[in-house]
Amino acid sequence: MIIDCHGHYTTVPDAHKRYRQQQLAGERPAPADITDDEIRETIEQNQLRVMRERGSDLTIFSPQASAMEHHVPDPQVATDWARACNDLIFRVTELFPRHFAGVCQLPQTPAGNLDACVAELRRCVEELGFVGANLNPDPSGGHWTSRPLTDESWFPLYDALAELDVPAMIHVSASCNPNAHTLGAHYLNADTSVFMQLVEGDLFERYPTLRLVIPHGGGAVPYHWGRYQGLATRLERPPIEQLLRNVFFDTCVYHTPGVALLARVVPVENVLFASEMLGAVRGTNPETGSGWDDTKRYLDALDLPEDDRRKIFEENARRVYPRLDTRLGQMV
Amino acid sequence: MIIDCHGHYTTVPDAHKRYRQQQLAGERPAPADITDDEIRETIEQNQLRVMRERGSDLTIFSPQASAMEHHVPDPQVATDWARACNDLIFRVTELFPRHFAGVCQLPQTPAGNLDACVAELRRCVEELGFVGANLNPDPSGGHWTSRPLTDESWFPLYDALAELDVPAMIHVSASCNPNAHTLGAHYLNADTSVFMQLVEGDLFERYPTLRLVIPHGGGAVPYHWGRYQGLATRLERPPIEQLLRNVFFDTCVYHTPGVALLARVVPVENVLFASEMLGAVRGTNPETGSGWDDTKRYLDALDLPEDDRRKIFEENARRVYPRLDTRLGQMV
Repeated sequence: MIIDCHGHYTTVPDAHKRYRQQQLAGERPAPADITDDEIRETIEQNQLRVMRERGSDLTIFSPQASAMEHHVPDPQVATDWARACNDLIFRVTELFPRHFAGVCQLPQTPAGNLDACVAELRRCVEELGFVGANLNPDPSGGHWTSRPLTDESWFPLYDALAELDVPAMIHVSASCNPNAHTLGAHYLNADTSVFMQLVEGDLFERYPTLRLVIPHGGGAVPYHWGRYQGLATRLERPPIEQLLRNVFFDTCVYHTPGVALLARVVPVENVLFASEMLGAVRGTNPETGSGWDDTKRYLDALDLPEDDRRKIFEENARRVYPRLDTRLGQMV
Repeated sequence: MIIDCHGHYTTVPDAHKRYRQQQLAGERPAPADITDDEIRETIEQNQLRVMRERGSDLTIFSPQASAMEHHVPDPQVATDWARACNDLIFRVTELFPRHFAGVCQLPQTPAGNLDACVAELRRCVEELGFVGANLNPDPSGGHWTSRPLTDESWFPLYDALAELDVPAMIHVSASCNPNAHTLGAHYLNADTSVFMQLVEGDLFERYPTLRLVIPHGGGAVPYHWGRYQGLATRLERPPIEQLLRNVFFDTCVYHTPGVALLARVVPVENVLFASEMLGAVRGTNPETGSGWDDTKRYLDALDLPEDDRRKIFEENARRVYPRLDTRLGQMV
């Protein structure tokens, strides 16, 4: 089977967006009343249609990343918003259990608020059957006012991730800084910054089973693999290959040469198929007639050995997301 | 001949570093008294030795980037420091005119201070024979508090660059933000952010002859070329290829697969040989026995057609830096 480890619910019913607007206007609205049919329609006409067209089977699905808006400082707003978004994801996974598995949004805020994040993570994993979480390394939205992810202030969250045995995908939300476009700079820069934080720190000595997925092909990292190898040596850090026990990269790189570099540089065990389809780069490449985010085509073009393909398209995801593996096993 | 368009004077005499320490301690010292022999020694034993070993002929040389420290807010300190650094570069270019051409540090500060920058740029180009400038898109050092480079507040500098017909290399200085390691994140993120700023803006409609060199292989950009093509379409911006009239990438990518991707994705006219040697990633790759920053080896491994090699190693630099071309012509 083909598992896409990186999809967001970018096509939510309008009522959910109105709920958010009311929230941001300072109201304390109840989450929108959305019917199963409305959810079905937004999924069947969008993500599921595209999955069928492209031949993928299951998407690891989370709330829209840019709409997480962790820069909004009110902890209660963050908690209500994360719950509403995650509940919607849960309903998608209930309506289409063979096609979607849930990953949760955490109610992060710039000031921290990890108790609420841990509580929501537990709720989503233990009660809603989610298989992972998205972790925002910059809740400020482009101002980078929090501590690096290796700082002990984050440890309560890692304790819970390790205990629940679910990975976190590193994923920022919208940029509030005009210097860094959300999709064209902030996302990639966050991926790059976090990898270097992990090079500098000793996070996985304390959390040997913690698994982090760095999306968007790892930002700039695989393209600059030699730079990181050299920097690790110069900074007297362990070889960066040690990080690969715990760090994984997705394939959200939207042209063949980029995906080819990723597959050449990063060991095949650390590459997880993903498209982030109907996400950052919607639309069709006029030169190829295919969607920019149809990353399966770029991988297919590489003519990888069948063993490698199986790892990238399925086995790595089942290993990194063991609760997904369990879930799939229960469905057989 | 082989021109390396990206080198910094990372091996300055200790007296120059002491001058800086005095400055930062709040003194108003005079620039260090440094003899020609001291300069000769630091260059001959370092940059020039390595250039000879690797077979490059001329380095476009500027003050140490991480030491520019534009985050220091005092405009007079910034001006004095830039002058002292640039004067040292000038002396290198006078002592070794066939091997070094100067690029200046600007006395930027987080609050702006472009009058002083324009004045120092003019002094360096008109009086000291420099061929370009380094432009820091984030004087705050990792907090990104200034305006994007497409903002009109930067226009006085572009007016001067265009009038003098010298390019700017986009180059941040040290990071003051623990989230973004200077060499492993901040440098690359700045390259990526600025490219996206240029995608979003119309800078080159106003400045059709302005030329910007994005170093470190363009940050994450060539690896994500398809992402930028798709984003430009989605944002209803012109094709990113239009930017290539004005935007150039250097080859400071420290492994063969990365350099191969750069050469495959970016038109050969827009790739300028560079190593930033004795810079960010000093030291030897134990697997190859060569320096990490020996980028000529990575290019040599590509077996490019001779025409392409000539462009990357010489002709593009002479075109992008016309004052270098003039300077070289006068030496024949």
